[in-house]
Amino acid sequence: MATEKNPSQSFTLMNELVLPNDTNTLNNLMGGRLLHWMDICAAIAAQKHSNNIVVTAAVDSVSFKESIRLGDVVTLKAYVTRAFNSSMEVFIEVFAENLPQGEKVKSNEAYYTFVALDSRHRPIPVPTLVPETDIEKEKFDGALRRRQVRLILAGKMKPGDAQELKNLFL
Amino acid sequence: MATEKNPSQSFTLMNELVLPNDTNTLNNLMGGRLLHWMDICAAIAAQKHSNNIVVTAAVDSVSFKESIRLGDVVTLKAYVTRAFNSSMEVFIEVFAENLPQGEKVKSNEAYYTFVALDSRHRPIPVPTLVPETDIEKEKFDGALRRRQVRLILAGKMKPGDAQELKNLFL
Amino acid sequence: MATEKNPSQSFTLMNELVLPNDTNTLNNLMGGRLLHWMDICAAIAAQKHSNNIVVTAAVDSVSFKESIRLGDVVTLKAYVTRAFNSSMEVFIEVFAENLPQGEKVKSNEAYYTFVALDSRHRPIPVPTLVPETDIEKEKFDGALRRRQVRLILAGKMKPGDAQELKNLFL
Amino acid sequence: MATEKNPSQSFTLMNELVLPNDTNTLNNLMGGRLLHWMDICAAIAAQKHSNNIVVTAAVDSVSFKESIRLGDVVTLKAYVTRAFNSSMEVFIEVFAENLPQGEKVKSNEAYYTFVALDSRHRPIPVPTLVPETDIEKEKFDGALRRRQVRLILAGKMKPGDAQELKNLFL
Amino acid sequence: MATEKNPSQSFTLMNELVLPNDTNTLNNLMGGRLLHWMDICAAIAAQKHSNNIVVTAAVDSVSFKESIRLGDVVTLKAYVTRAFNSSMEVFIEVFAENLPQGEKVKSNEAYYTFVALDSRHRPIPVPTLVPETDIEKEKFDGALRRRQVRLILAGKMKPGDAQELKNLFL
Amino acid sequence: MATEKNPSQSFTLMNELVLPNDTNTLNNLMGGRLLHWMDICAAIAAQKHSNNIVVTAAVDSVSFKESIRLGDVVTLKAYVTRAFNSSMEVFIEVFAENLPQGEKVKSNEAYYTFVALDSRHRPIPVPTLVPETDIEKEKFDGALRRRQVRLILAGKMKPGDAQELKNLFL
Repeated sequence: MATEKNPSQSFTLMNELVLPNDTNTLNNLMGGRLLHWMDICAAIAAQKHSNNIVVTAAVDSVSFKESIRLGDVVTLKAYVTRAFNSSMEVFIEVFAENLPQGEKVKSNEAYYTFVALDSRHRPIPVPTLVPETDIEKEKFDGALRRRQVRLILAGKMKPGDAQELKNLFL
Repeated sequence: MATEKNPSQSFTLMNELVLPNDTNTLNNLMGGRLLHWMDICAAIAAQKHSNNIVVTAAVDSVSFKESIRLGDVVTLKAYVTRAFNSSMEVFIEVFAENLPQGEKVKSNEAYYTFVALDSRHRPIPVPTLVPETDIEKEKFDGALRRRQVRLILAGKMKPGDAQELKNLFL
Repeated sequence: MATEKNPSQSFTLMNELVLPNDTNTLNNLMGGRLLHWMDICAAIAAQKHSNNIVVTAAVDSVSFKESIRLGDVVTLKAYVTRAFNSSMEVFIEVFAENLPQGEKVKSNEAYYTFVALDSRHRPIPVPTLVPETDIEKEKFDGALRRRQVRLILAGKMKPGDAQELKNLFL
Repeated sequence: MATEKNPSQSFTLMNELVLPNDTNTLNNLMGGRLLHWMDICAAIAAQKHSNNIVVTAAVDSVSFKESIRLGDVVTLKAYVTRAFNSSMEVFIEVFAENLPQGEKVKSNEAYYTFVALDSRHRPIPVPTLVPETDIEKEKFDGALRRRQVRLILAGKMKPGDAQELKNLFL
Repeated sequence: MATEKNPSQSFTLMNELVLPNDTNTLNNLMGGRLLHWMDICAAIAAQKHSNNIVVTAAVDSVSFKESIRLGDVVTLKAYVTRAFNSSMEVFIEVFAENLPQGEKVKSNEAYYTFVALDSRHRPIPVPTLVPETDIEKEKFDGALRRRQVRLILAGKMKPGDAQELKNLFL
Repeated sequence: MATEKNPSQSFTLMNELVLPNDTNTLNNLMGGRLLHWMDICAAIAAQKHSNNIVVTAAVDSVSFKESIRLGDVVTLKAYVTRAFNSSMEVFIEVFAENLPQGEKVKSNEAYYTFVALDSRHRPIPVPTLVPETDIEKEKFDGALRRRQVRLILAGKMKPGDAQELKNLFL
């Protein structure tokens, strides 16, 4: 198994067509359905990086700015931004496109975290992530800070110990 | 329309049975499916508070500690914790129960934010939320801090202006 | 395992949002979809009472008085009304609510019967049901009569032997 | 529009394959899913008789004798047994077949009642049902008795007024 | 096991109601959903002929002439037209009916090919198909020619060796 | 609107995870489900080319060589190969990948044909397709021959008039 991988090796692209059952009574894509698609897309990226079965460990904050409409084509793009022993942070971007009108807007972005498991359902180490482009390096660096937020939110770290985060506010 | 409501007026309870299509190849509930159920449960709570159609505006960080298994009964509980003009923060707790084995564990909790819309899809004011119990008051107070996190993450506030958050780290 | 349980120990509450695929071309919830939700809600109640896997054995007559509309919130409430060796009768009530219009109506009620099974799929005894409130006692008493109807309909009892039922007509 | 029709004109046959999501954790078809299929099959029969949109008005008691397994082929057969002004009683039989093992068993039968609606959702008269075979005539006669049961159960008739039913017990 | 069967022994009939999630934004049944229903109907026919589990091996060209609308009843009819060792060709016809308007049109027809498998997933011989009616005999004869097309398209036969096909063009 | 487009402008990539409800009792992806995914992927490509709503007009022969398993990641790639007035031929390739085992195989390929419709559901002209790479040019040339096959199969052309096809056999 490879001991190092770069983000392009886990890059995953999904297109989904918004069908009636995906929408609320305003004919907009429901937020929960989109979170589900993002989970599947990100999980595939994490599987590509780890070559193992993965389970979702955390989802960072997601905001929904643009409503996505019935009939739109939703494009999801995901890749691994950093690996920590047996867990991986995955970045996902979501775009919505009304093809007859030729409009394409970025709708969302989010970070999902996955843990790789072996066949007996125990965490197993994953390859190191080696960023290549500038934007990949920036996401790689930010991953530490986002991880501190997750640990604080999960009650596993005290805010006072999160040095990376403190720097943000000072 | 009521101008004030308390959390118990929006309390919503859902039970779901984990069926094969909700699970991954480990027979665990997929994270994305759970996020979808949480969205529906929280949206019903926000509709009860606002008596209007609502759309998901944000989902705060969610962590998945316990795996939920095929055949488990999932219980979701949601209520509105604070209203801000036309938006509402909703708190959701998720429990998983293996009835034959008599085990019930808390699996997750999360905050979802919704915006109420009128019939022409424009934001419309919602009743003020008046907390009653101690835990409701605590969540009401914390809602300001969580809102600052959302505004920072959405790029609408600078970390240095988030006074509530700065206090956490000092 | 408890040898006695009361109805509140099996009380189960479900909320469902009526989505496009649940409706017919009149935008009403299809009867069959509602029967499916009632089955799941009642099965969870029977599992809570028995702490075993259950299978549906019978559904009593159901009438559909009020049409339920796309976008309505459907609330289902179920609890065990009586236990007979390895089978349980469950009472389910269904309410439909149009939240923007603030209307909530009772749509249906029904009795489902389940059998508890052990891990080898054989019937297994369940705890006795001990009713507490007046309405629970009334349902407990009526359960005998409804059981005779089921046995007659299944061809396992002659109408002339159904003493409880005969009294109704005389 | 025809003013009279016989049962063969509404005869409807459906085959369904039991897929994983239709089953419980015992790999048996869930009762609620079967009730849903029965509703769709019976509704098509009622539409064939009335040439109008129909809505489910009532489901008579259903018992589940034989468990149906994952991978089985389920065959549903339905036809209208009697018409009453704007409502129709439909008889449905369900068979389950394990094709590799060559076993076919009758699993269920039931009566569903539908009301025909015009384009403004108001009840509209349907053709008279004229039975032809002996079994069709027997079902046509029994329909009166079953209708009395439904009216009593819906609280629209007193048991003492149900002459057809009283004869059963005397 | 029977060594010979005729087409009527595998005849399979399915009715489906076109629901919102089956349609595109024009309220027409999506081609892909129809191909899925045709696959299930044809697979049941092949299972009836072989009394074994079957997997889809090929689908011949399908054209979609008539659009099928939301609320239409789709009728699928399938039967085995010829058996080749462990594979079977199945003919499927699709009809769409708007019951309130009383219109029924033939929408499609197609040939699907299936392979029968034993419990260890290896191909297993199936009964010979013996056509009876004139149309069954015509389809039986044409099956050879269609098989040559499939073999050429799959790169397993050179066009010059397909004598049956060459006759078509000369 | 552009009057010319090349294949890369309609290129569409989809990833799907094979979930339990997509599989038969052998835990293989059902052929019909795959045809449905191929239809959605190809329809998105045709929408990208035409910037209009499209409906499926034809599916050419598809063969299923490799079985795709529960848990596999299915990758679909589609692009327009030639435009004919208001119709477009789309080429789709399907790959299946078992990520934990690191195996990726090509499972299928097929041609789907779509017609672009305007807002009143009438056929509308689409941009000309201009191939660029060698493989795109080869598919562009072959499209004429495949179109003759479709016209013959649909009974709209006599085999003797299909000059492109005749050349194949001589």
